[in-house]
Amino acid sequence: MQFLDKYQEIVAKAVEKYVFKDKPTELYEPMNYIISHGGKRLRPIMVLMANDLFGGDLQKAIKPALAIEFFHNFTLIHDDIMDEAPLRRNQPTIHTLHGINTGILSGDALLLKAYKFFEDLEPELFKACIRVFTHTGLLLCEGQQYDINFETLPNVTFNDYIRMITYKTGVLSASSFEIGALIAGADFKDAKAIFNFGKNVGIAFQIMDDYLDVFGNQEQFGKKHAGDIYENKKTVLYLLAKENATEEERKELEYWYSKKTDNVDKIYSVEKIFRRTKVDEKTLLLIQKYNEIAQDYLNKIDVPDEKKKPFVELANYLLRRES
Amino acid sequence: MQFLDKYQEIVAKAVEKYVFKDKPTELYEPMNYIISHGGKRLRPIMVLMANDLFGGDLQKAIKPALAIEFFHNFTLIHDDIMDEAPLRRNQPTIHTLHGINTGILSGDALLLKAYKFFEDLEPELFKACIRVFTHTGLLLCEGQQYDINFETLPNVTFNDYIRMITYKTGVLSASSFEIGALIAGADFKDAKAIFNFGKNVGIAFQIMDDYLDVFGNQEQFGKKHAGDIYENKKTVLYLLAKENATEEERKELEYWYSKKTDNVDKIYSVEKIFRRTKVDEKTLLLIQKYNEIAQDYLNKIDVPDEKKKPFVELANYLLRRES
Repeated sequence: MQFLDKYQEIVAKAVEKYVFKDKPTELYEPMNYIISHGGKRLRPIMVLMANDLFGGDLQKAIKPALAIEFFHNFTLIHDDIMDEAPLRRNQPTIHTLHGINTGILSGDALLLKAYKFFEDLEPELFKACIRVFTHTGLLLCEGQQYDINFETLPNVTFNDYIRMITYKTGVLSASSFEIGALIAGADFKDAKAIFNFGKNVGIAFQIMDDYLDVFGNQEQFGKKHAGDIYENKKTVLYLLAKENATEEERKELEYWYSKKTDNVDKIYSVEKIFRRTKVDEKTLLLIQKYNEIAQDYLNKIDVPDEKKKPFVELANYLLRRES
Repeated sequence: MQFLDKYQEIVAKAVEKYVFKDKPTELYEPMNYIISHGGKRLRPIMVLMANDLFGGDLQKAIKPALAIEFFHNFTLIHDDIMDEAPLRRNQPTIHTLHGINTGILSGDALLLKAYKFFEDLEPELFKACIRVFTHTGLLLCEGQQYDINFETLPNVTFNDYIRMITYKTGVLSASSFEIGALIAGADFKDAKAIFNFGKNVGIAFQIMDDYLDVFGNQEQFGKKHAGDIYENKKTVLYLLAKENATEEERKELEYWYSKKTDNVDKIYSVEKIFRRTKVDEKTLLLIQKYNEIAQDYLNKIDVPDEKKKPFVELANYLLRRES
């Protein structure tokens, strides 16, 4: 993914250039800490990709791209507190190092800094971007709350699930693309098309995440096998299995998902039902479906195919993480 | 304070009108809960007062005024988690009722909702207000962090203290006035003057808060006597006492402030030093000084004195809470 390397370098340089030097350092150092540990930085890259697609100026898009990265890291800081996660990107989380209070406060400040990074834009564009940004932030909070609700909700539907992952994952990719397009001066129709491309790739990506948890090659995927089953997560596999199960299988599924246990019998039994109900095939079809919807939106945009190639490559990269 | 009643009614009606009906309710109900419990709602009132001072339209200012109230409540939700406070306005705090996770998430969403409530403004004005708003938010986070730092910092100076209370309290009053002025179309000079009026009244108010903790009439003030001394808070009284104390008194002060104890000897001894160093008089002079600076800024604004009367009354109301 050569084009990714190029963008990653641009973002890495910008991160370095705009490292927070504000005081008090007790507030800003944790923000620098999490941002410097990087990750793939796909979301700011999406801003830059969309900006390039519509012929925008990199210099104009770079600070808003960082704003998206700040926002993403703000959600990670607060999510890690909520999940009591000790590690993030193999490094201790901020609340582990500095306590929950610093985690809350640094997260808040990082969200505010994200808003600040749009301020070089002219008023019309500033307002357009901030509207998208704020709306996205609210949907993410709502998605997070739906995800929490699902833990105790007995009857989560497939549609509930799709809404939850759309809000939690799809919308931020979508908005990253949209903001890049807006900054490049794309028209409303094109900005919405690239938004919908991002949204559907994001949904497909999240479904793939559920799939790989059970059917992935663990070494390449790098996570504990079937962690979602251990934690009774109502993933797309679980929901599709329930939909397609016999009465007896459904009862067995519900029995296992009512227990918190490390018993391997649970994994064995649940996976057997997953296979019998063919949720592996069904899930791959679903990923394909959302990817196709995404590609359709991409096709609607009236720029030469050559310029769209990175978007197709990015989708393939995100959706074939095992290959 | 008849004019306050009038504004309080306007804000109360707006709060009712704009109650959040979004879903999921698990996210939005806690936000409605804290906002509905009110408090004096001085900050949105400040927006409306400044808007009136410069002849603005109430309808245009009301949603930004609520944005300020949302912002204030966002900080309260997160502060209450940090302080492990069980009660706020005599009601259980959100994290007490729903857990820390809901507290963090509802707070985040409330900050985002605050941004949304500026969106009816035209782009130029939107950008001007959002800049003030974001900057204020960051200073509040910084002030909060300075306050946390002070707990373990041995040598807090008087200037450190003034900066901390300016960020934590002064700036939000200041910005509430400024945003009201901007919405009314006040010029830059006038907007800055009313900002500085608010900042200095805010500082004076916070110093009065320190004063009343020890020298206030507890029944009217409604807080535990000398709570700040019990908690070793480096208030203005403590800092002025240290500055004016003999070597022996300073050592005694430091001795008591290194202990967490409910021993009344501590209160008795510290208050004796406070009186011997005359920090009560000095503090009242300081409040007077900041109030005078505030009034000077108010005087610079070229509108009839009659229209400024509510501002003078508000300052008197805030600074003579015992009378």
